[in-house]
Amino acid sequence: MADVRRLVLDVLKPHDPPLVAFTADVADTESVEAISGSLIELDKEVQNVKLTLEGSSLDYDAVEAAVEDLGGTIHSVDEVAFGDYIVEERLTLQDG
Amino acid sequence: MADVRRLVLDVLKPHDPPLVAFTADVADTESVEAISGSLIELDKEVQNVKLTLEGSSLDYDAVEAAVEDLGGTIHSVDEVAFGDYIVEERLTLQDG
Amino acid sequence: MADVRRLVLDVLKPHDPPLVAFTADVADTESVEAISGSLIELDKEVQNVKLTLEGSSLDYDAVEAAVEDLGGTIHSVDEVAFGDYIVEERLTLQDG
Amino acid sequence: MADVRRLVLDVLKPHDPPLVAFTADVADTESVEAISGSLIELDKEVQNVKLTLEGSSLDYDAVEAAVEDLGGTIHSVDEVAFGDYIVEERLTLQDG
Amino acid sequence: MADVRRLVLDVLKPHDPPLVAFTADVADTESVEAISGSLIELDKEVQNVKLTLEGSSLDYDAVEAAVEDLGGTIHSVDEVAFGDYIVEERLTLQDG
Amino acid sequence: MADVRRLVLDVLKPHDPPLVAFTADVADTESVEAISGSLIELDKEVQNVKLTLEGSSLDYDAVEAAVEDLGGTIHSVDEVAFGDYIVEERLTLQDG
Amino acid sequence: MADVRRLVLDVLKPHDPPLVAFTADVADTESVEAISGSLIELDKEVQNVKLTLEGSSLDYDAVEAAVEDLGGTIHSVDEVAFGDYIVEERLTLQDG
Repeated sequence: MADVRRLVLDVLKPHDPPLVAFTADVADTESVEAISGSLIELDKEVQNVKLTLEGSSLDYDAVEAAVEDLGGTIHSVDEVAFGDYIVEERLTLQDG
Repeated sequence: MADVRRLVLDVLKPHDPPLVAFTADVADTESVEAISGSLIELDKEVQNVKLTLEGSSLDYDAVEAAVEDLGGTIHSVDEVAFGDYIVEERLTLQDG
Repeated sequence: MADVRRLVLDVLKPHDPPLVAFTADVADTESVEAISGSLIELDKEVQNVKLTLEGSSLDYDAVEAAVEDLGGTIHSVDEVAFGDYIVEERLTLQDG
Repeated sequence: MADVRRLVLDVLKPHDPPLVAFTADVADTESVEAISGSLIELDKEVQNVKLTLEGSSLDYDAVEAAVEDLGGTIHSVDEVAFGDYIVEERLTLQDG
Repeated sequence: MADVRRLVLDVLKPHDPPLVAFTADVADTESVEAISGSLIELDKEVQNVKLTLEGSSLDYDAVEAAVEDLGGTIHSVDEVAFGDYIVEERLTLQDG
Repeated sequence: MADVRRLVLDVLKPHDPPLVAFTADVADTESVEAISGSLIELDKEVQNVKLTLEGSSLDYDAVEAAVEDLGGTIHSVDEVAFGDYIVEERLTLQDG
Repeated sequence: MADVRRLVLDVLKPHDPPLVAFTADVADTESVEAISGSLIELDKEVQNVKLTLEGSSLDYDAVEAAVEDLGGTIHSVDEVAFGDYIVEERLTLQDG
C-alpha cells in the first residue's frame, strides 16, 4: 500500500491539555517526522485546531488514536498525500 | 500517444471508505507516483473531493476504474497535462 | 520568422471526445512538447477549455487543424510568446 | 545613450492579421529577443493587445514602425526599462 | 519528547517595557535562537503583540515565564511546530 | 554619507518628450545603473509616471536636475534605500 | 543581551529635511547596515514615513536619537527582530 506522506486534520479538542502539550503528544506518535498545530477557533468548551503532519510513512490509525487518547476528535481529514513525493494541490479554474 | 503527467479530478464519493482509505486505494493504481486528496465539501450522503495525481505516464482508465470500484464517480476532469514536462497553467488577462 | 514558444488558447469543444482524449490528440501534434488542458465552463452542448502549449517551435496552423479535426474551435488566442526565451507578461500600473 | 531592455506596450490593432501573425511580425523586428502578445479586449472593429518585449538593446522606433506597418497604433507605453539589468518595479505604500 | 521548533504567540503586555525591550528580554530566554515581535494593536492600557520564536528545542515554560515576568500574558498560542524540520501550514480548500 | 541604492519617484511630466525618451534621458544621468519608467495616469496636459532607479551610489540631485531639465517635477519620493544592500520593505500587521 | 537585527518604525517627521536627506542621516547612525524609507502619508505639517532598518546589532537608542535630532518622533515600533537570524513573521489562521 502507498505511504501516507502528509495529513491535514481538522480537530476538535478540549481546552486541556493546551495546544502545545496536545500537539507534543501527537508529535510523539511513531511515524510523525514533523507536525504543526494551529488554532482555528476558541470556543467556551472546545478548541478547533488544524494539525499538519508529515512523515515518510505516517500511520493514520496511530495518529487518530493519539488524538482520541487526548480527548480530541478528528472532525475531518482536509488533505492527504501519498507517494514517492508530495504533490502540492494547485488551484484550477474550477476553484474560483 | 503523449503521456499523461498530471490529472486534477473532481470526484463524488460515498462517506465510506473515508478520504484516507479512498485515496490510498487510488494511489495503489499502477502508474500513479504521487497523489493528494482534498475535501471540497461534505454532504449528508456524498463527499466532494479533489484528487491531484502525477506520474510519468498516468493510466486514466485505470484511475477512473479505481474511483468507480470504490463507489465514486469522476464529476469532471479539471486539468490534464501531457508532455516532456508539466506546463503550469498561467493566468492571462482573459481570466479576469 | 521567429519561433512560437508558448500559446494559450481559449477553445470551445463538443462534450465528445472528453478533455483527456481531446488534449491527448492535440498533444500528438508535431512540435508540441508540453500541453495542459483545463476546464473553464461546462455547458449543455459545449465545453469551454483553456489549452496552454509549449514547444521550441510550435506550429500554430497544425495545432488549429488538430483542434478543428476534433470538432473544436479556437475562440481566441489569449497569449502567444516568441523568441530565444519566453518573456513572462507582468502586471503594470495600467492593469489595475 | 542607455539601452532599452524591456518595453510594455498597449496596442490597438485591426482584427487582421490575427494576434499570432501580428506578434510574429513584430518579433521579426531586429533587436527583439523575446516578445509575448496578450489579448486585453476584443471589440467589433479593433483588438486591444498588450505586447511585452525584451532585448539587450531594443529599437523603439523600429518596433513602432512594425506595429504601424501592420495597421496598429501604440496607444500607450506602459513600462520601459533601461540599464545594465532590468529593475523590476515594486509596489510602494503609495500604490494603494 | 519532540522538540518545539517554532511558536507563534498572541501576547497582551503593559506599555512598559516597550516592544523593543520586552522582546529583547524574551529573546534572552535560553533556547530562543531567533524572535520577532510585532505590534497588533495599541490600546490605552495594554498592547497586543505577536511573538514568533524559533529554536532547535524551545522551552515553552521558560518563554511563558519570561513573558509573565515582564507583566505580559499569553492570550493564545496561534501556532506550534515540532519535529525534525518545520512543516509550513498550507491553506486547504477548507480554509476558504 | 551612506550611498543611495534605490529611488522610487512619483513624477509629473509634460506629454513631450514621451515616456521612452524621457526615461532614456534620466537613464543617462551618471550613477544610474538601471531605471524603469511606468505610466500611472494620462491627463490632458501632464503625465504622471513612476520612476524606479538603482545604482551603487545614486546622485539624487543629478536625477532631480535631469527630471527638471525635461520639464518634469518630482511630486514625491515614495521610497529610498541606503546601505550595503537593499532592504526590501515588508508589510507589517500595521499596514492592514 | 540579544542583538537587534531588524527594526520597522512608524515615524512622524517635519517636511524638512525631506525623505532622502532624513533617511540618509538615520543611515549614518552607527550599526545601521541598510535602511529604506517609504512615504506613508503626506500632511500639511508632517510626513508619516516607514523606516525599515537592518544590521548585525542595531543600536535602537542611537536610531531614536537620530530620528529626534532631525525633528522626528517614533510613533510606534511595528516590528523588531532579534537573534542568530531574522525570523520572518508568518500569517496564521488568527490573522484573518
